[in-house]
Amino acid sequence: MTWQIRSRSLKPEDLLVEESLFSLANGYLGVRGNLEEGLSNYESIKGTYLNAFHDVVEIPYGEKLYGFPDTQQKMVNVIDAQSIQFFFGEDEEPYSPLQGDVIHYERILHMDKGYSERMIQWRSPKGKEVKIRFIRLVSFQKRELFSIFVEIIPVNFFGKVKVVSSVNGDVSNYVNSNDPRVGSGHAKLLNTKVCERLGDYLTVVNETKKTKFQVACVTSHRWEEGQQSIETNGNELTVTNVFQLSKPTVFEKRNVYVDTLRHGDELIEKGISLQERWKQMSMEELLTEQRKYVTQFWDHADVKIYGDEKVQEGIRFNLYHLLQSAGRDSYSNIAAKGLSGEGYEGHYFWDTEIYMVPVFLMTKPELAKQLLLYRYSILDAARKHAKIMGHQKGALFPWRTISGSECSSYFPSGSAQYHISADIAYSFVQYYLATGDEAFFETYGAELLFETARIWIETGHFAEDGFRIDAVTGPDEYTCIVNNNYYTNVMAKYNLEWATKLYDRLDAKGDKYFHTLKTKLNLKKEERDLWEKAAKEMYLPYDEKLKINPQDDTFLQKAKWDFSRTPKENYPLLLHYHPLTIYRYQVCKQADTVLAHFLLEDEQSMETIRHSYHYYEKITTHDSSLSSCIYSIMAAKIGEMDKAYHYFTETARLDLDNTHKNTKDGLHLANMGGTWMAIVFGFAGMRIKESGLHFHPRLPKRWSGYECNMQFRSRYIKVKVFKERTEISIKGNPLELTVSERKYLVKEGEPLVIPTNE
Amino acid sequence: MTWQIRSRSLKPEDLLVEESLFSLANGYLGVRGNLEEGLSNYESIKGTYLNAFHDVVEIPYGEKLYGFPDTQQKMVNVIDAQSIQFFFGEDEEPYSPLQGDVIHYERILHMDKGYSERMIQWRSPKGKEVKIRFIRLVSFQKRELFSIFVEIIPVNFFGKVKVVSSVNGDVSNYVNSNDPRVGSGHAKLLNTKVCERLGDYLTVVNETKKTKFQVACVTSHRWEEGQQSIETNGNELTVTNVFQLSKPTVFEKRNVYVDTLRHGDELIEKGISLQERWKQMSMEELLTEQRKYVTQFWDHADVKIYGDEKVQEGIRFNLYHLLQSAGRDSYSNIAAKGLSGEGYEGHYFWDTEIYMVPVFLMTKPELAKQLLLYRYSILDAARKHAKIMGHQKGALFPWRTISGSECSSYFPSGSAQYHISADIAYSFVQYYLATGDEAFFETYGAELLFETARIWIETGHFAEDGFRIDAVTGPDEYTCIVNNNYYTNVMAKYNLEWATKLYDRLDAKGDKYFHTLKTKLNLKKEERDLWEKAAKEMYLPYDEKLKINPQDDTFLQKAKWDFSRTPKENYPLLLHYHPLTIYRYQVCKQADTVLAHFLLEDEQSMETIRHSYHYYEKITTHDSSLSSCIYSIMAAKIGEMDKAYHYFTETARLDLDNTHKNTKDGLHLANMGGTWMAIVFGFAGMRIKESGLHFHPRLPKRWSGYECNMQFRSRYIKVKVFKERTEISIKGNPLELTVSERKYLVKEGEPLVIPTNE
Repeated sequence: MTWQIRSRSLKPEDLLVEESLFSLANGYLGVRGNLEEGLSNYESIKGTYLNAFHDVVEIPYGEKLYGFPDTQQKMVNVIDAQSIQFFFGEDEEPYSPLQGDVIHYERILHMDKGYSERMIQWRSPKGKEVKIRFIRLVSFQKRELFSIFVEIIPVNFFGKVKVVSSVNGDVSNYVNSNDPRVGSGHAKLLNTKVCERLGDYLTVVNETKKTKFQVACVTSHRWEEGQQSIETNGNELTVTNVFQLSKPTVFEKRNVYVDTLRHGDELIEKGISLQERWKQMSMEELLTEQRKYVTQFWDHADVKIYGDEKVQEGIRFNLYHLLQSAGRDSYSNIAAKGLSGEGYEGHYFWDTEIYMVPVFLMTKPELAKQLLLYRYSILDAARKHAKIMGHQKGALFPWRTISGSECSSYFPSGSAQYHISADIAYSFVQYYLATGDEAFFETYGAELLFETARIWIETGHFAEDGFRIDAVTGPDEYTCIVNNNYYTNVMAKYNLEWATKLYDRLDAKGDKYFHTLKTKLNLKKEERDLWEKAAKEMYLPYDEKLKINPQDDTFLQKAKWDFSRTPKENYPLLLHYHPLTIYRYQVCKQADTVLAHFLLEDEQSMETIRHSYHYYEKITTHDSSLSSCIYSIMAAKIGEMDKAYHYFTETARLDLDNTHKNTKDGLHLANMGGTWMAIVFGFAGMRIKESGLHFHPRLPKRWSGYECNMQFRSRYIKVKVFKERTEISIKGNPLELTVSERKYLVKEGEPLVIPTNE
Repeated sequence: MTWQIRSRSLKPEDLLVEESLFSLANGYLGVRGNLEEGLSNYESIKGTYLNAFHDVVEIPYGEKLYGFPDTQQKMVNVIDAQSIQFFFGEDEEPYSPLQGDVIHYERILHMDKGYSERMIQWRSPKGKEVKIRFIRLVSFQKRELFSIFVEIIPVNFFGKVKVVSSVNGDVSNYVNSNDPRVGSGHAKLLNTKVCERLGDYLTVVNETKKTKFQVACVTSHRWEEGQQSIETNGNELTVTNVFQLSKPTVFEKRNVYVDTLRHGDELIEKGISLQERWKQMSMEELLTEQRKYVTQFWDHADVKIYGDEKVQEGIRFNLYHLLQSAGRDSYSNIAAKGLSGEGYEGHYFWDTEIYMVPVFLMTKPELAKQLLLYRYSILDAARKHAKIMGHQKGALFPWRTISGSECSSYFPSGSAQYHISADIAYSFVQYYLATGDEAFFETYGAELLFETARIWIETGHFAEDGFRIDAVTGPDEYTCIVNNNYYTNVMAKYNLEWATKLYDRLDAKGDKYFHTLKTKLNLKKEERDLWEKAAKEMYLPYDEKLKINPQDDTFLQKAKWDFSRTPKENYPLLLHYHPLTIYRYQVCKQADTVLAHFLLEDEQSMETIRHSYHYYEKITTHDSSLSSCIYSIMAAKIGEMDKAYHYFTETARLDLDNTHKNTKDGLHLANMGGTWMAIVFGFAGMRIKESGLHFHPRLPKRWSGYECNMQFRSRYIKVKVFKERTEISIKGNPLELTVSERKYLVKEGEPLVIPTNE
């Protein structure tokens, strides 16, 4: 059961959410789980997306100040190839689950096999009864491929069937001007340049209005029987196939998506050549190939939960969608909603580095590397952004972007989040620590760490009480533009420390590469010394009375939000209160100081961490889906396992149960990473440090045990945690591990067995 | 000389600025000083405005958060009646100063007479030489009237003259999307509904797109000779008059502007009836009437400077434009640019209460009262705004508005400026103290003071160290969204104190009115007690080390702006740095704490005031035109007369010399009030307190003396300050004055003569 997500609902509100839940993707191409037959009058967001494929639109302002971005990028809803309609009998009764009787209906996401399936047994108003089965595949091995396999099975109806399958270039983006989390305008971003039949292929080419990116969809149909005709209707191509239904009959609609970002010119030729190359492979073979890829992933990434099927379903669902969403090339990353919807307009945020890279780093490190390479690829854009933000040098990564330019038009909780640069630097260090990939760290990491370190020198200043960083926003978007946000300062400190460390290491090596890099960046020893000094003197606010790290210089002086006077329907607060009202109070949208204590736990005593946790927990709404997982991890850290479990359950099924009420706009990818993190960093207490891999395993009361898999410095590691004992086994060379503060050398074939922590 | 502003320039850049400098207005109708003949290819902002006559446009946002206003109001450029063109000879050589030779050219603003005059002696390319003289009048006594009087004088040319005079409904607003200080879109706000000849009248009616306000212009011409024909060309009406020039010949173009805000329906009829009513009056009679009004104003308002003609010119120019700009009805107030241009889109700000009401209060109190009545009229809108901003009760005045709704789309330096409500309350108290008008204070002031006092209880909170007000922006727009802005807190304290005082007074009186008001506002004694407590415990930040009031809780911890690295061309900073960069540093756009020390000087010791002045002076750019006058006043207060004089000169000729480089967008009305304030509050040391009228006269070194006039509690007061002595005389009942900290009873006919302070 737990390898499948199932639904038997045809309720409009469920179908809308399921468009996201049952979306299929492979990091390049994503298709929402719309129904092939369409349902008129039902609200639907029909979407097909290519990662990083975007147009540029002007950002309107009532009052535009210096440095506000003129334009933003917007992921585009591309050509639609999902539609297939059915007509039964000589009277051509149209198939629709809204008419006649649905005798049986079920939809399944096969997470172990890598495809979705949908079955309906339906009796028409006039009594014709058939079964229809759809299988959808977005291939991990053939990134351009989206295929729909259809089987029609007669029950009491035998006779004429008309199938109408179309490819439509006339598409729009979804807009809602009153929800800042989705696009607010510019629905129509594409012009159709080509819409024609080429032999048996349907070919549509669309072009974005400003960026002039092109996308082509080349579609073929494999009919078992029947007579076909093809028609063009405006920007839509339609194939009609008519046959006599006498036995179960199948057909396949195979769509190939290519774009100018990855495939250069002559898209139609490229698409056709891919179709031709894959012609010999049957749907069955494609599914086998898919299953192989997925199996391999689960072998190294699966998390098993003993004694809680709902959660088991959640964690696998979340991991599966992460796998589907991660960009595999230097153009792309992981959008906040992956390729499952248009929320946040396909932009990449710090979510990737802090909530998703860790998952890949430990389960599929080649993908983590790819995600970091994307960041390196936009380093020049980050340098430009730094200039706009008033800095003489360094690189400041934009808050939200696709190809590197800042797309945020509301800087207080956008560009002001300087921490994103430290987060990215942190991620490079974590990658290095987990993989030991020195070449990558020195080639790409050095330049990135140096350029981000510079930003802190540019932004902060030395004062009597230390190196202070003013006028930034931390992760908590309910508190904006503050001085000495603890999170930002401590992350900047880490960034500066590692930049110094890396400088010294490269300096000692005396590589020619380092010389070249120093020349390129005009980097002098004095700068390195400044980094060291700033890191050493970094001001980290601490409150003696509360024994916590204040979120910023004035946070604790503000009044606490009155939760007793806040009705339930007023959450999330950002949709019901003016930002200024929210900024006025001690109220957090999400983990901020608590997150800093997770990422850099050695910066504070356990006592401070514990007090901070308890202090901030009371004033955090978790209106952001980035919050609960961190609270779960930190509750586990301080040994409050009931709390840890409570927060974990908030994350595990957030989308499956649509608890944030906006899954229709796409899945919450960061939260999905957070589920894995809550288990691995939280329950298993895993940390990646310079001193190696650490664990501190605990077990939630409700479970009889759990198991997780990961990779670390070329070893496969399996951690099994049960009530009485924890078992850690490795594949590969012996590895020193720190488990519950003790060091062990673990060898292949000799699992470490130790007691589980209370 | 000093009663006239003169220009002999025809340079494009001068002409553009002079459109503002030579604008004429009467508080209702404003006409920019465009040239009747027009100059093709010269940049020009041709404008005619009616105070408060506006349309509503949508505010676009890239990311719209809760409570951001959907729409804003925009002052509309209405029907254009300025154009008159001339053609000389049978060959109809067009008159343009850009062709042929300009032998003499001069333009004069007659501030003592209330009109503008323009003379040109011109020889056409073919040698025809004439003089043309224009006189323009926007009548103070007949608010709808804008008249142009033209005289053509032959020099060597005698023959056919063709005059083409037009009224044009096809008008647009000026836009510049990169300057946040002017409008960024929506140029076309009017549709022309009527454009036709009615007898000899040209009638044009325009209607705003959204508000459906209508404005009509009814124009008549009084020709001395010639043959006329009238033509309609789209939305333009044109009269052509042809005659033989044999002697100096005159004509008048008389335009009457009426609108639905003030004149109800049937605008054309209303306009014609006004034309008919005034038909008997010649231009000369109109000018005589105008002169009478202006003379009366100067009698009670003039400021004389002995020994500095440039400054004398400046102060009169500024007072004159203030007189022109102040709204005279409950629809209107004083726009940031008056009626002289479209900068800040005709919106009313706190500028009125803090920088302009004081001038009228002391020179023309009936206008001050009118301005306060306007604020009272938008009290309901302020209540609505308070709700949007998250408050249960009270009235929060919008940052910028025309008819009461918030028009600011950038809240950090917009709606966050809560102090505007305290400023308005302060202004009501000042009005009461200066006029003794108890009826007004109790009828209008009470409701306004109570409702604004409530906002501070709503916004602030009691903490260990006092009543704190978080997340607001003070006057200084280079430091936004801070906690315990000294200015805001001390002004809120005053607001709360006076609300308490007024409550007690009304309570003691036991009026029925008070009972009704309490019921209406659901106001209880407990609330009054809370006001008193909050005022008493108001937290006013003070720095022991620097002995100053910090601008806010964290201001002093920030790094100081590096002025040595800021090139001259980077001012004003807001046009060259991202707001976040500016927010990061100790740098002020304008007086903030220093302004608080001016308005409420008894709240701090002289020592603190002096230290604050010196501290903030070093970090203030005066990028706002609201700044220098306050620094001038406070420099005088602490006895630094050279500084006081320096800042005063920055204000006196700011527009005349276009020192802020944006006079083209309109005059800086607040600064104009500031000039008067710098003399009266600054040099003469005038203050209005509960204890009466105070003076502390000083004389700038460069002057041999000065004289200012004012009214206080029904007395006329004249203050003459010379090097050795100050002479204060009054008209009316005896008045106790405090001069240089000593009390004197001054009687009519017995001027007080005392030594001037060093």
